[in-house]
Amino acid sequence: AFKRSVPPMPRSPLAPGSFPALPPVAGVGLAVGRWGGYPTRDRDDLVLAVFDAGTTVAGVLTRSRTASAPIHWCRAALPGGRARAIVVNAGNANAFTAKSGDLLVDTTVDRAAALFGCPRTEVFVASTGVIGQRIQAPDAIAAHLPALAAAAAAAPAEPEAATALWRAAALAIGTTDTYPKGSAATATIDGTPVTIAGIAKGSGMIAPDMATMLAFVFTDAALPAAVLEALVGPINQRTFNAITVDGDTSTSDTLLVAATGRARHLPVTAADDPRLAGLAAALETVMRDLAHQVVRDGEGATKFVTIRVSGAVDAASARRVGLAVANSPLVKTAIAGADANWGRIVMAVGKAGEPADRDLLSLAIGGLPITACGALVPDYDETPVAAHMRGSEIEIGIDLGLGDGAATVWTCDLTQRYISINADYRS
Amino acid sequence: AFKRSVPPMPRSPLAPGSFPALPPVAGVGLAVGRWGGYPTRDRDDLVLAVFDAGTTVAGVLTRSRTASAPIHWCRAALPGGRARAIVVNAGNANAFTAKSGDLLVDTTVDRAAALFGCPRTEVFVASTGVIGQRIQAPDAIAAHLPALAAAAAAAPAEPEAATALWRAAALAIGTTDTYPKGSAATATIDGTPVTIAGIAKGSGMIAPDMATMLAFVFTDAALPAAVLEALVGPINQRTFNAITVDGDTSTSDTLLVAATGRARHLPVTAADDPRLAGLAAALETVMRDLAHQVVRDGEGATKFVTIRVSGAVDAASARRVGLAVANSPLVKTAIAGADANWGRIVMAVGKAGEPADRDLLSLAIGGLPITACGALVPDYDETPVAAHMRGSEIEIGIDLGLGDGAATVWTCDLTQRYISINADYRS
Repeated sequence: AFKRSVPPMPRSPLAPGSFPALPPVAGVGLAVGRWGGYPTRDRDDLVLAVFDAGTTVAGVLTRSRTASAPIHWCRAALPGGRARAIVVNAGNANAFTAKSGDLLVDTTVDRAAALFGCPRTEVFVASTGVIGQRIQAPDAIAAHLPALAAAAAAAPAEPEAATALWRAAALAIGTTDTYPKGSAATATIDGTPVTIAGIAKGSGMIAPDMATMLAFVFTDAALPAAVLEALVGPINQRTFNAITVDGDTSTSDTLLVAATGRARHLPVTAADDPRLAGLAAALETVMRDLAHQVVRDGEGATKFVTIRVSGAVDAASARRVGLAVANSPLVKTAIAGADANWGRIVMAVGKAGEPADRDLLSLAIGGLPITACGALVPDYDETPVAAHMRGSEIEIGIDLGLGDGAATVWTCDLTQRYISINADYRS
Repeated sequence: AFKRSVPPMPRSPLAPGSFPALPPVAGVGLAVGRWGGYPTRDRDDLVLAVFDAGTTVAGVLTRSRTASAPIHWCRAALPGGRARAIVVNAGNANAFTAKSGDLLVDTTVDRAAALFGCPRTEVFVASTGVIGQRIQAPDAIAAHLPALAAAAAAAPAEPEAATALWRAAALAIGTTDTYPKGSAATATIDGTPVTIAGIAKGSGMIAPDMATMLAFVFTDAALPAAVLEALVGPINQRTFNAITVDGDTSTSDTLLVAATGRARHLPVTAADDPRLAGLAAALETVMRDLAHQVVRDGEGATKFVTIRVSGAVDAASARRVGLAVANSPLVKTAIAGADANWGRIVMAVGKAGEPADRDLLSLAIGGLPITACGALVPDYDETPVAAHMRGSEIEIGIDLGLGDGAATVWTCDLTQRYISINADYRS
């Protein structure tokens, strides 16, 4: 009853050129397989990541009040701060599946904990795909774990093979994504090189029922769980929490960042340790890159939009103003139409509910000033602004003139194709 | 620079059959004219309503932080609770017009106060249309007031002529509305008949720059301003504040309710006086009818959607859950596609941020149960639900199972036509 036949999505016009080179991360084993989430399609749909003992983890989970069974499990396990395995499946979100959903999670976690000889709270799970469809066999995923564990133990160290494996994993966790998403960076801690690599999936809250943003980022840095958590929270606010495709919130959004500790730097005990500045910057680069790739795969997107808000009372207020603009259907449709319709930006700023003063507001599009102090700039010429709007990378600047709070958010335009993708007959 | 040529919109398929019969309201004079808001079109764009001395007023104004100049004025004048005149123009929203906008309002208010011999705070103004476009002549609207005042003093008492005048006024305040919106009802207070009649405009936040919901409701009941305000607030929450087309908030939304006191009933001094029950019900009928007419004129709408939320912790929570569902692009596109995609409703309930428990949630579409206690009902058959979704009047029921808070909200679907209307090239 829940199948629908959609033609394969063409690759997003905003997609990056190709999947980047991703190195192996010391202490991380990776394997890709099939549990049967897409019985009629020739594609993988299961990923296992295995970590060395002692690996720390931090994460951010959806705030949805109708969260999936895997989210409930991760919420309970995350405070432990340790991870030995992450099991990710596509093809079934295991959301709104009542007790059968919890049983599926429990069985998967039990099997992984036994395989790796770790406490149950060191096994994390994430699911994406159809919701409300029960999985009959509680071991539907667990049954594949022994073979995946064996494969993960033999994960390649050679760069090209490693990239191919990362890419396969990014493809396996995808649903309606039109391209696999990966990113990597290196940094040093006290002169010791550390590696960060991650994959993500997501393209708005998309069919068949709803989709999800999943992101998994791994590093060989040695970071206590509390330090990792203190690093990840603020970076997440500036990256994954600063993007929006349609303002809808998944039941299953998951970001997990794991640190294996295999890099041989001296211990760090505080997130504000200046020796972590390079790692923090590299982690933000990877997370921002993955976040941008999700936006660039937004359903029907033809333009990538950067909204920079300054002059707010604080950074949180700036971010909320930016998201109000980014989520406004009228702003997003104007962008789709290459319409320099700055009045809609004013409207969206006004509806954010944040401190704003009409007579202090300045707007710019593509760096070109449009309004200052609450009115159109003298001799405003729309021609160059309209030319910018016809491009595929749109820049909107908003200065509230109140304080020094600033934030940047990213979104895409809202096109007829978004409607046709999401209004397709399913029944 | 701000003109755009759009073909005339066809009448919404959800429009009511015809403009209803609207009676004159004792103590209200009405006149329609042109100030020049649409220089290239043969249409009226200015309305004056004049009230007998002693008329009380209550209102609700946009909460936008970038509100228009007329909104700033109305905010200052409303606490006085008295109205002698309301001046409404279309074709220019007088928003984001800096000091020139305030000067236009001041000049209009001065002239009206002089004409009607009343304090300035008894004159209200409302504007809708293009934003950010300065009006050069401060008396652009005031210059037309003497002629309109003369016409209003001779407003017809004969029913057919009265309806024609109301209809002309509803047309004159419209922007991209595809039909004029009016509603009327009668009630008795202590056996004395009272009349309520009102007009509204709005069809989402629509072109040329952004649109607005304006509603003006008049009665001959004799109600102290405090009583009127106490009546209007809660009714507004259940009517105009329970509708959404695209979740965008105008800079100019205005509801004004005026009571002339010409009906000869005994004085009432409290909103909860049981003698006001009939009037309150009639007022709610008119305001709900006007609110529904706005939704039925939503850009591109093909389906009228009623969302009934029950079992919430309180009515405010129920309303917020309902609005989260009503504003979800994924729910609205599914409805456009006649897709019984209840998973998206679950998602939208979850994102509302209100108390909800996955395992207590029950959903119904068209009165047909879909989920109960967090899972699909046994032997769920999508066929009759899909048949309901193909109709143009959609009913969604959501029971949160937590308390006895209930609310109903109304919206329309999100179609490709919404995108084409709002993404039209303007520049």
